[in-house]
Amino acid sequence: MNLSRRNFLTKSAAGAVALASIPTIVSSCISPEKEEKKDKYSLFEKGNTILFQGDSITDAGREKEKELPNSAGSFGRGYAFLAASTLLNALPEKDLTIYNRGISGNKVYQLADRWQKDCLDLKPDVLSILIGINDYWHFRNDKYDGTVEIYENDLRKLIQRTRDEFPKIKLVICQPFAVTNTRAVDETWIEPVKTFQVAAKKIADEFDAIWVPFQEVFDEAVKHAPATYWTGDGVHPGMPGAQLMAEAWLRAVE
Amino acid sequence: MNLSRRNFLTKSAAGAVALASIPTIVSSCISPEKEEKKDKYSLFEKGNTILFQGDSITDAGREKEKELPNSAGSFGRGYAFLAASTLLNALPEKDLTIYNRGISGNKVYQLADRWQKDCLDLKPDVLSILIGINDYWHFRNDKYDGTVEIYENDLRKLIQRTRDEFPKIKLVICQPFAVTNTRAVDETWIEPVKTFQVAAKKIADEFDAIWVPFQEVFDEAVKHAPATYWTGDGVHPGMPGAQLMAEAWLRAVE
Repeated sequence: MNLSRRNFLTKSAAGAVALASIPTIVSSCISPEKEEKKDKYSLFEKGNTILFQGDSITDAGREKEKELPNSAGSFGRGYAFLAASTLLNALPEKDLTIYNRGISGNKVYQLADRWQKDCLDLKPDVLSILIGINDYWHFRNDKYDGTVEIYENDLRKLIQRTRDEFPKIKLVICQPFAVTNTRAVDETWIEPVKTFQVAAKKIADEFDAIWVPFQEVFDEAVKHAPATYWTGDGVHPGMPGAQLMAEAWLRAVE
Repeated sequence: MNLSRRNFLTKSAAGAVALASIPTIVSSCISPEKEEKKDKYSLFEKGNTILFQGDSITDAGREKEKELPNSAGSFGRGYAFLAASTLLNALPEKDLTIYNRGISGNKVYQLADRWQKDCLDLKPDVLSILIGINDYWHFRNDKYDGTVEIYENDLRKLIQRTRDEFPKIKLVICQPFAVTNTRAVDETWIEPVKTFQVAAKKIADEFDAIWVPFQEVFDEAVKHAPATYWTGDGVHPGMPGAQLMAEAWLRAVE
C-alpha cells in the first residue's frame, strides 16, 4: 500500500486499462483518436471554481435551500453530480469548488435574469452551460413565443457578458438534445432542434468553448439499447443516460 | 459515427486509456496488476438483478416510497447510485435491473428483519452488502449492546439464508470502514472497527464472496487530501468519497 512515486504511476496505467469497456459509446463520438494524456484534466487548476448551469437536465432534482458546492444534497441526481463526483475523486490535490445552479424549466433568457447571483457572484474559472431544449419545447407547447434567433442572440449576450467580467474564463457549451422514440419526442422534433444545436455550436466556436456533442452521443447510444433505456421522455435522462452524459462531458474537457 | 464492430473495439481501447488518471487511488489498492479485461463485468449476465444492501452509506438519502430499480429517485446520492449508473451505462445490452435497499441506521440484525421483502423477494443474481459500522458505532454510543461475535454470527446466518434460497447467487461483501481525523472518528475507533472488518472478511472468504476493501482505499485516499475531503464525519462519504467507493466497488467486481 505504501507506494513509491514510480510504482504509483505504473499502477495508474494498469487502472486505466482496467476501465476498458466503460466509455465505448462516448469514445466513438468524442475524440476517438485520443491517446493517453499524461496531464489529465489539466483544464482545471488548483483552487478553481467550476459551475454547471442549465435547465432541468442539469438541475436533476437538486435541493435549492443551501446550494453548497461539492455537496451531494445540492447537486441533484444528474450528469452534473456524476461528472463532478468523478472530478472531485480524480483530482483531490486540486481542491476544486464545484457548483450546480441549473434550474428546471429555464430558457436562456431566464439564465440571464439570474446570472449575477447564479454565475458572476460565484466567480467561476470554468463554466459549463446546457441550455436550449426548453427554448424549443415551450415554443412547441405554445407556452413561449421565442425563436431560435432570440435563443442565439440571448446566449451570445450571456456568454459575452460572462467573458467581459472574467476574460480568462474557460467555457464548456453543451449541445441541447432530444431523443426520438420516447414519451415526449418524435421525429418532428429533429429539424427544429437541429436549428438550436447549430446556434449553440456557432456560439461555442465564436467563443472558443469546449463543445460537448450530447446529441451524437445519444444517437450512438440508441444503437445499444432502446431510446427509453437512456431517457424516458427523450429530454430528461435516466441513470444510464445521465452517466452517459457525464462520461461525454468528462471526455470533452479532459 | 457509423462504426463497424472492428472500429468500435479499436476505439474502445482508446477510450480506456483516456480515462487514465481517474482510478489511481483505487487501482493502487485493488488488483494493481490487473490487465485489460476483454470481457469486462462478465460477472453480470443478461437480465440479471443486482441488489445493494446496507445502512446509511448505501441508503444515501434515497426516496423510499416507490423503491424502483434503475431509478435515480430511488437510488440516493451515494456509491450505490454512482456504481449502478456506471454499470447501466457500460452494459446497455445486458438489460440489468438494479435496486438499492440500504436503510440508514441499520445493523446486521435489522437487515435480517427485513430480508424477505428487501432481498429474497427481489430474487437477486448479485447481492452486495455493506454493513457493520453501526454495529460498532451504536454500541460505542450505548445505543446497542451487540458485540462483534453477534455481528459475525448474524451476518453468517444472513448470507447462509440467502445462499440456501439462491444457491447460484454471486456475493459482494464490502469492508466496513471508519476514517480518522474527521468529525466523529478518532484513533480509538481503529482497533475495535478492525475486529468487525476481520469478521466481515472471514465471512466473505467462507462464502467465496468478492471483497471490496473500502478501508484500504480510504487509507490511500487520505494521502492525497485531508480525511474530511473524503468523508466529513469519518463514516458517511461526501461526493469525492462516494465516487471513490463506487470506483473501488466497480474494480472489485470487474
